[in-house]
Amino acid sequence: MEKKILGIDPGLSVTGYSVLLQKKASIFAVEYNFKKFSSKDDVQTRIGQFYEFILYKIDQHGITHLAIETPFLGKNAQTFLKLGYLRGVIYAIAFQRKLQVFEFSPTQVKQSITGYGGASKEQVAKVLSMLFPNMYAPAKADATDALAIGLCGIWSKEKTL
Amino acid sequence: MEKKILGIDPGLSVTGYSVLLQKKASIFAVEYNFKKFSSKDDVQTRIGQFYEFILYKIDQHGITHLAIETPFLGKNAQTFLKLGYLRGVIYAIAFQRKLQVFEFSPTQVKQSITGYGGASKEQVAKVLSMLFPNMYAPAKADATDALAIGLCGIWSKEKTL
Repeated sequence: MEKKILGIDPGLSVTGYSVLLQKKASIFAVEYNFKKFSSKDDVQTRIGQFYEFILYKIDQHGITHLAIETPFLGKNAQTFLKLGYLRGVIYAIAFQRKLQVFEFSPTQVKQSITGYGGASKEQVAKVLSMLFPNMYAPAKADATDALAIGLCGIWSKEKTL
Repeated sequence: MEKKILGIDPGLSVTGYSVLLQKKASIFAVEYNFKKFSSKDDVQTRIGQFYEFILYKIDQHGITHLAIETPFLGKNAQTFLKLGYLRGVIYAIAFQRKLQVFEFSPTQVKQSITGYGGASKEQVAKVLSMLFPNMYAPAKADATDALAIGLCGIWSKEKTL
């Protein structure tokens, strides 16, 4: 059975995303990139663009599951709230398209990929480049993060609904 | 020109909503009620139901504008985050249906309705019952709140886009 995951590292400035395909024992990194949102647009507009973009990627690739990084309460309540907006949008899309959402904290992502929850971004990138030897270097760390998130989704067991 | 507003007091347990119609100088309260979400369903499911419900009300009534109460950072970060999810969903819907969203803080709502930002819920309800003499008593305060929010939307000037 094929599993096609869209990994999302949500952000209102930059959203990283990855598309991973699992076919039997093989995992393919189909696409990993980032999408920028203009700071000239207001938050509401950018949320609309985020909504449209995620829906487009789902339909373009025939995505079967979503994997996202869950926000943690950082230093800034406004940033936390904005990540909440994006998570709400993802949940609404998952409901619309009947997709399961796997969620991971930043620590869980690092733990799954490197075996160590306190790993650096460089360590995560290194493991990824070993898993995907033909991988091109992503232009932005957001894309690498999304690849790591997607991979956690691939490794996750289906929830029995 | 007719203006048909959906006033929303968002919540994952109970969401209050109101539909208000402005026709020339007259304002009609078409509907005001609340929608309960089951605590047996997980957050993601309830967000999906919220999404579906708001979209249904918009299409049912031919809504032209949305009015929402903006969350304030209360005592509980988790509640704040959940209100953020719902606001994200509302923004995504507004984008889909090309609707303008008017936003009001709880204080702004009280200020607009009663002339005093520190007014009690009872004072707000009293003014509303004077403005809408034929109004039936809502079963829940959430519906009254949504009516107040919708009215603020009616009184708002269109943003020039």
